[in-house]
Amino acid sequence: MSIKFTVTERDGTSLARNGILELAHGSMETPAFMPVGTNGSVKAISHQKLEEMGVPLILGNTYHLYLRPGTEVIDAYGGLHQFSSWKGNILTDSGGFQVFSLATFRKITEEGVRFRSHIDGSYHELTPEKVVGIQNSLNSDIAMVLDVCTPPDIEYREALKALEITTAWAKRSLKEWQLHDPAPGRALFPILQGNFYKDLRQRSAEELLPLDFPGVAVGGLSVGEPFPLFLEMLHHTGELLPPEKPHYLMGIGTPEYILAAVENGIDLFDCVFPTRIARNGSVFTPRGVMALKNARFEKDTGPIDSECDCTACRRYSRAYIRHLFKAKEILGPMLATEHNIHFLMRMTRNIRTAIRNSAFREYKEAFLDEYRGKHT
Amino acid sequence: MSIKFTVTERDGTSLARNGILELAHGSMETPAFMPVGTNGSVKAISHQKLEEMGVPLILGNTYHLYLRPGTEVIDAYGGLHQFSSWKGNILTDSGGFQVFSLATFRKITEEGVRFRSHIDGSYHELTPEKVVGIQNSLNSDIAMVLDVCTPPDIEYREALKALEITTAWAKRSLKEWQLHDPAPGRALFPILQGNFYKDLRQRSAEELLPLDFPGVAVGGLSVGEPFPLFLEMLHHTGELLPPEKPHYLMGIGTPEYILAAVENGIDLFDCVFPTRIARNGSVFTPRGVMALKNARFEKDTGPIDSECDCTACRRYSRAYIRHLFKAKEILGPMLATEHNIHFLMRMTRNIRTAIRNSAFREYKEAFLDEYRGKHT
Repeated sequence: MSIKFTVTERDGTSLARNGILELAHGSMETPAFMPVGTNGSVKAISHQKLEEMGVPLILGNTYHLYLRPGTEVIDAYGGLHQFSSWKGNILTDSGGFQVFSLATFRKITEEGVRFRSHIDGSYHELTPEKVVGIQNSLNSDIAMVLDVCTPPDIEYREALKALEITTAWAKRSLKEWQLHDPAPGRALFPILQGNFYKDLRQRSAEELLPLDFPGVAVGGLSVGEPFPLFLEMLHHTGELLPPEKPHYLMGIGTPEYILAAVENGIDLFDCVFPTRIARNGSVFTPRGVMALKNARFEKDTGPIDSECDCTACRRYSRAYIRHLFKAKEILGPMLATEHNIHFLMRMTRNIRTAIRNSAFREYKEAFLDEYRGKHT
Repeated sequence: MSIKFTVTERDGTSLARNGILELAHGSMETPAFMPVGTNGSVKAISHQKLEEMGVPLILGNTYHLYLRPGTEVIDAYGGLHQFSSWKGNILTDSGGFQVFSLATFRKITEEGVRFRSHIDGSYHELTPEKVVGIQNSLNSDIAMVLDVCTPPDIEYREALKALEITTAWAKRSLKEWQLHDPAPGRALFPILQGNFYKDLRQRSAEELLPLDFPGVAVGGLSVGEPFPLFLEMLHHTGELLPPEKPHYLMGIGTPEYILAAVENGIDLFDCVFPTRIARNGSVFTPRGVMALKNARFEKDTGPIDSECDCTACRRYSRAYIRHLFKAKEILGPMLATEHNIHFLMRMTRNIRTAIRNSAFREYKEAFLDEYRGKHT
């Protein structure tokens, strides 16, 4: 096995579990939130701050890094770690999602996907093999296969077609990955698709899981569907996942989604949302999301969250940070970003403690009661 | 005397001198560059980084802070230090310059200046007394009198009129300041004007310097005039300044201007330029300004400046920082801002050492030779 994953504790009352994931750039505890560093930088926060918070892994986006600065530049450094000077682990997505959400034109064939760059309109083609090659250049600790992402409202035929291509691409990706003879501590994950059809999710699992991948990702959820549908599909999919391997749910990172993910056996998750809303002045607190631009904080001398020990909460008041956002000062996004990542790091630490104590469900209920304003 | 200033060393070959300025929020060595924190935050850098670099004083803009968040909000904290959590000294300008450069409408009378906010178009009036009152609310360590700023191409009559109002306002400001009975370590400075007419500069000095101000600022230079004219007027004005008091030259902060200022007896200077060009990807180096977006840095694995020990230079390469700017990542401005302030902190330290060794002119020549590319 290219990477080592050990389940250390199980909650018992749900699929929630704690684990240790050993990767080329360090071991990490799971469940873990992975901040997104699209262009090789988590927006509005320094590497040092992430290190101080104990972030063990950040994401990079293959689509973005391939287009800019290009693998040629990153090759000059021997990989994304050296280029960006990030010493921890890096997971890169395959670019599939971005081709579908950002590119101004795309055409899928069995061979790969042709698209136009959202940056300069130039034409490009990505194939499963090429995407593996790029991620090999990036020297990603966890690389992802190219997949076909589908929106929540498509017909069965279309979902089936996307699934078939995704499976075929996963097989080609694995073959290519093995040709590169990756170093220990590096792994390629396939992506379970199947849209919102349970039998297709089942079929995707049946086709992908027997292959020799050391972990598995769940894609195509949290793509705009209602929360109950997300929960239903997550529950269905969670039960299909091999218990001994790490499970990565792509694109989720808010407290309610994180709790649902962990409850269904998810170990890793990422999302741009926490850092994106931070740049817009919204911060997580135990009592829900707080929009700092709100007029009621104009003279509020208290911290965002008195129990938080991030820079923003230790040093600054709500009124000052509100002022920074109103005046469009960059320090506003800097402080709010640090706070939101810090919040999720603390939350996942608390989740792991709850699992250790076989008390995940109690933790979840108590958290959500307070978060949704049911506290007294 | 409300503040204490001690000239500790004189260069001997020029007017350059070292000093210790004792203010309410700490002593500081001069000559010193003061970073600008328009809205109570130096753009794109945290307070902690400024403290780590040993920045003893930052500027705040009365005009901006008066309009947003408003003195009512800052009053709730007891001043700008508490509101912004900046523990060092704060100098606030009077807003005069901003009324002339930013406001969409202005009308000067002997009473004060009426203008429209550049933020929301609302009408406001600032008088010398009101500006002192606002800066008293801000609890500025050094406050500035309201003055009339003039562009470099006006006629004598107009310059004379502006000068007369500036003098009258300075007298009213001082009276108002004394009414507030400011705490020790706080001071109000007048601003020498006179446009680019030597006799008017002389007259401004004759009118303002006999008044009981503990320091003096020079305004209306570096406002778009050619460098030789700046030098000529600076030299003329520098000789008019009282040797025992601190001299502040407003609005300069690039290496060539700093060297000229120090040579003419200036102790304090500020400018938005170093942090503004940083946000645009330009950084100071001993060999001149480097535009990091330049294609020649695409694969440049070296630091911005190998002799600099700021975060940007210790950890990151030119190619990575270039990439951050190309990808519009906020970390780019963050790193370049820290570098440029760090550069000027190092430069002013070196200047003080040179003065201590009575070697300012040699330092200046050697610096400029390298900076202008005359090094071998």
